[in-house]
Amino acid sequence: MRKSKITAEEFLELASEGVPYVGLLGCRVERLERGEIDIRMPWQDLLRRPGGTVCGPAMMALADIALYGVVLSLVGPLALAVTTDLNVHFLRKPAPGDLLGRGRVIKPGRSLVVGQVSIEREADPHPVAHAVGTYILPPTG
Amino acid sequence: MRKSKITAEEFLELASEGVPYVGLLGCRVERLERGEIDIRMPWQDLLRRPGGTVCGPAMMALADIALYGVVLSLVGPLALAVTTDLNVHFLRKPAPGDLLGRGRVIKPGRSLVVGQVSIEREADPHPVAHAVGTYILPPTG
Amino acid sequence: MRKSKITAEEFLELASEGVPYVGLLGCRVERLERGEIDIRMPWQDLLRRPGGTVCGPAMMALADIALYGVVLSLVGPLALAVTTDLNVHFLRKPAPGDLLGRGRVIKPGRSLVVGQVSIEREADPHPVAHAVGTYILPPTG
Amino acid sequence: MRKSKITAEEFLELASEGVPYVGLLGCRVERLERGEIDIRMPWQDLLRRPGGTVCGPAMMALADIALYGVVLSLVGPLALAVTTDLNVHFLRKPAPGDLLGRGRVIKPGRSLVVGQVSIEREADPHPVAHAVGTYILPPTG
Repeated sequence: MRKSKITAEEFLELASEGVPYVGLLGCRVERLERGEIDIRMPWQDLLRRPGGTVCGPAMMALADIALYGVVLSLVGPLALAVTTDLNVHFLRKPAPGDLLGRGRVIKPGRSLVVGQVSIEREADPHPVAHAVGTYILPPTG
Repeated sequence: MRKSKITAEEFLELASEGVPYVGLLGCRVERLERGEIDIRMPWQDLLRRPGGTVCGPAMMALADIALYGVVLSLVGPLALAVTTDLNVHFLRKPAPGDLLGRGRVIKPGRSLVVGQVSIEREADPHPVAHAVGTYILPPTG
Repeated sequence: MRKSKITAEEFLELASEGVPYVGLLGCRVERLERGEIDIRMPWQDLLRRPGGTVCGPAMMALADIALYGVVLSLVGPLALAVTTDLNVHFLRKPAPGDLLGRGRVIKPGRSLVVGQVSIEREADPHPVAHAVGTYILPPTG
Repeated sequence: MRKSKITAEEFLELASEGVPYVGLLGCRVERLERGEIDIRMPWQDLLRRPGGTVCGPAMMALADIALYGVVLSLVGPLALAVTTDLNVHFLRKPAPGDLLGRGRVIKPGRSLVVGQVSIEREADPHPVAHAVGTYILPPTG
């Protein structure tokens, strides 16, 4: 595993401070290497949904930010990389609690980067959601 | 077009008040019929993203809430209907402004409901995002 | 609706003769305009699946060829345009019979083209499958 | 890893003999355990596509059959289990040659089973395609 091209601090500045709706989630980077990231979304009442579980849009935001982290770990702080498609499967209804988004690159391309994200509860091997998506990189000059 | 099995007020109570992270978006129902919904997500600074555009997770939340509306228009106020999968394609980067989520049912099943959502700018025929997803209904007693 | 940049004959030569596994389906173009195509996949015993219905991989092939037609209608006979992602929802189990793949462009981009395909039975408004996907165009010289 | 609820022979009878369009691919099961399958799709000229690579519909068929194998490994020979959605990302253009579909379960549910498939070349760690999809099981009596 080689070194990420962006630090956790640089990444959170782009992903959380630059995107306030995502910033509300208060996500923290727990691990960041080239092509791999673990992000924690701490539980807060903001995330609840009927049925006593975590709302889907917060999990999709976590998936998207984790993919963004995977992409920037490969190419550095390119704020203008954007999602072109995201596919999410919701697998289990997690009880209220922190969630971890574990992202990793599947295909590191020059214009398209594909990655996947497993959303998990702490110390539980069964994921609660699984996402695959593509980011497109801005053309380099 | 037949009558929706849920009113706009009932729907927003479930989708916005029951799900605070979605409630922050301040979405408004503009039209609700059986199998069809138009929802407006008003522009606010909370939604911005680097590049002067609307952040993807807010658009995904709009897609999900529009699908939820489509589903509840068919079955009534079943809070426990949940997304099983959602696929989103991001097509264009919208300038800051209101977005409309136009949802409609593709398959009204007894346990699975599939719908699609076109996310559009006012008075612009070119969608900015397109989503397809499935909700699973709780078993009826 | 403007004129397609490829004729039905040119398209079938690329899509059916150039791709023998797809050619076995014997698809016929019923309508081809810029950004829109209707393709018929005639019923044959090759397509059956347990349960007396049409097998999913044949429907996925129909979706993919219809998207390919949409793309080539926009850009002309670029054999090297390839799918980057395809999302298919299977909605109903069709009885044995011809299927129509109705494709249309959602986003005609310079490098990425996104389209959707509704797979339908003749004279039946309820689709049996729905697909959304992206093609990437080869860089132009 | 526990024992599969279906043998490779039983599975191929359902998936290949019962579905002739898939049977043409001549797939072979290389490994089958509960929740995991490796399937080989041998190279043949039938699979070619312009650009000297393997056609997408054959890879989608391989993904679908591998998911079917994962599902039947959990529940036994239920021919009527059917795909509800399949999402495929095409990552690299493989040169003509055998492909391996490596499927594994992500969520073994009572009515919905979600799995993923990595399509790979022999002795090459970089996948050429990645799929995630859902099968729905027929109600048990």
